[in-house]
Amino acid sequence: MLALVLDDELRLVDDYPAPTPAHGQALIRVIKAGICNTDLELVRGYHGFQGVLGHEFVGLVEQHPDPDWVGRRVVGEINLTCGECDTCLAGRHTHCPHRTVLGIAGHDGAFGEYLVLPTENLHPVPPDLPDDAAVFTEPLAAAFEILQQAHIHPTDRVVLLGDGKLGLLCAQVLALTRCNLTIIGRHAAKLQLAEQWGIATRLVPAEEDLPADLVREVDVVVECTGSPAGFDQALRLVRPRGTLVLKSTYHGRTHADMTAVVVDEITLVGSRCGPFAPALRLLNSGKVDVLSLIHARYPLTDALEALEHAARGGTLKVLLDVHETRTSGG
Amino acid sequence: MLALVLDDELRLVDDYPAPTPAHGQALIRVIKAGICNTDLELVRGYHGFQGVLGHEFVGLVEQHPDPDWVGRRVVGEINLTCGECDTCLAGRHTHCPHRTVLGIAGHDGAFGEYLVLPTENLHPVPPDLPDDAAVFTEPLAAAFEILQQAHIHPTDRVVLLGDGKLGLLCAQVLALTRCNLTIIGRHAAKLQLAEQWGIATRLVPAEEDLPADLVREVDVVVECTGSPAGFDQALRLVRPRGTLVLKSTYHGRTHADMTAVVVDEITLVGSRCGPFAPALRLLNSGKVDVLSLIHARYPLTDALEALEHAARGGTLKVLLDVHETRTSGG
Repeated sequence: MLALVLDDELRLVDDYPAPTPAHGQALIRVIKAGICNTDLELVRGYHGFQGVLGHEFVGLVEQHPDPDWVGRRVVGEINLTCGECDTCLAGRHTHCPHRTVLGIAGHDGAFGEYLVLPTENLHPVPPDLPDDAAVFTEPLAAAFEILQQAHIHPTDRVVLLGDGKLGLLCAQVLALTRCNLTIIGRHAAKLQLAEQWGIATRLVPAEEDLPADLVREVDVVVECTGSPAGFDQALRLVRPRGTLVLKSTYHGRTHADMTAVVVDEITLVGSRCGPFAPALRLLNSGKVDVLSLIHARYPLTDALEALEHAARGGTLKVLLDVHETRTSGG
Repeated sequence: MLALVLDDELRLVDDYPAPTPAHGQALIRVIKAGICNTDLELVRGYHGFQGVLGHEFVGLVEQHPDPDWVGRRVVGEINLTCGECDTCLAGRHTHCPHRTVLGIAGHDGAFGEYLVLPTENLHPVPPDLPDDAAVFTEPLAAAFEILQQAHIHPTDRVVLLGDGKLGLLCAQVLALTRCNLTIIGRHAAKLQLAEQWGIATRLVPAEEDLPADLVREVDVVVECTGSPAGFDQALRLVRPRGTLVLKSTYHGRTHADMTAVVVDEITLVGSRCGPFAPALRLLNSGKVDVLSLIHARYPLTDALEALEHAARGGTLKVLLDVHETRTSGG
């Protein structure tokens, strides 16, 4: 099959072996896939992944032991877990130490014609939800993880730091709480989107120029800049005893002022993959704008160009069109 | 009065002006004071403090507008707050942005013959509690702040990292929960104290040699090493979705792996000053051993030597004897 493969280099391979579903797994024909910053970090060497990239997708079940599943349009959770270890049995499946992760660790991903996932990872897509929206389920679930981990009070002053594609999804999820929310970003065009959604914004082109009225005044800061410098900015904004939710992953370390964390008794919460069900409910309600985040579409044959495009400053979501939406099972 | 003063240098001054109580403040005759690592960090330039050092003390009220207070033996909370700002009104007094801090920021401390504090900062010492124990109220309150901020479950695997004087107090407070507690430290003699208290210990002389059975297995890690390297160790011990309580403050920054915090969804909790009332209740119950932590005593006239002693590796608490215990009010 055709697939975008990362090994010593990143290359498009037209005869990559199609995956074979193991017991309890579904073979899924990829319809669309989304490019995430994590994909770009993986190409830069983060995590040492080798294989087919891609973890955001919508697809059709092509093979499954239960015929009811065949032909269903699905999205899929990305952590493949053992289900048997203490971590899984404690309900922390996404942290299973034996896990592989679709397109990120030990399991080929969605930037190919087919992928396999266990049945328990699959979520049927509501029939009226377009592919272009369904493909955002995984990153929107990651945004919901914030509400899963931190209690955002309706009266809280909240700042979302970073106007990238994850930031703009997190902002829309945070806005559900009707908290007092402001997005701080560096790109006027992206912030304009948030303004259209009724979310307050502040354009802060340089790190130094944080709005003085927000410094040390924010109850909850969500750090989505994707860069190490975001941590310092977030720490300057959060009030003593406030909460700082960290969503950024990157290759490398942060030079962090942990003494300030102690003196101001800040709570830091690392936040990664989240629940698919509320993400699908929100998408299906139509009360979230994901389509405006789509900046470009490429066929899988142009996947290399698509990744280059995604890496350009100011770009939001780039999609790969892999297959047409149609039941191919018969 | 005689006082240990930090300005351009650290020096003993015998004609330092005695403090004058402002409205609502008490003049307190210091009986004993304890030397904390923060005092040593202040001497190294942390925080830029100038004035009389010292924030751990027990003393006698010598002057007070209400005669009932005069002659009472007291300990005192160290944050002098405005009581009027949003932070104070929200109940976060210890984070008042207008605060001064006894012997740490803008307010002369306890390494002198007298100090002043507002009445609301004072806690009478139970009559049977010896001065040698009462002088530990402030650091023991800081240990209680851990239980104030984090829910330690009785079934939790907890590691206290660091066998210094604050670590050994925190360990005794954590042990109250009957959680599954282990202290990891570098000093056999200090760990032996913990063993005497019935707390499990692991001697780990070098940072690299963390016990393999604890790595990524600990529900709650409390970092009390007082050094930037402690953060990395703590992060290696804590399980995914676990909690890391930070107690160490030091001059400088930490090179921190914040991506690991995100991927493992760790919660970090900065923890500083704590509640005096439970500390006094615990001291008064006799169910905590603070006297074994006293390694040396010096008269205030030898305060410079006392600080040198406190800075020597392996030293636990060094006390300054300032005045005899007796009501001097009459």
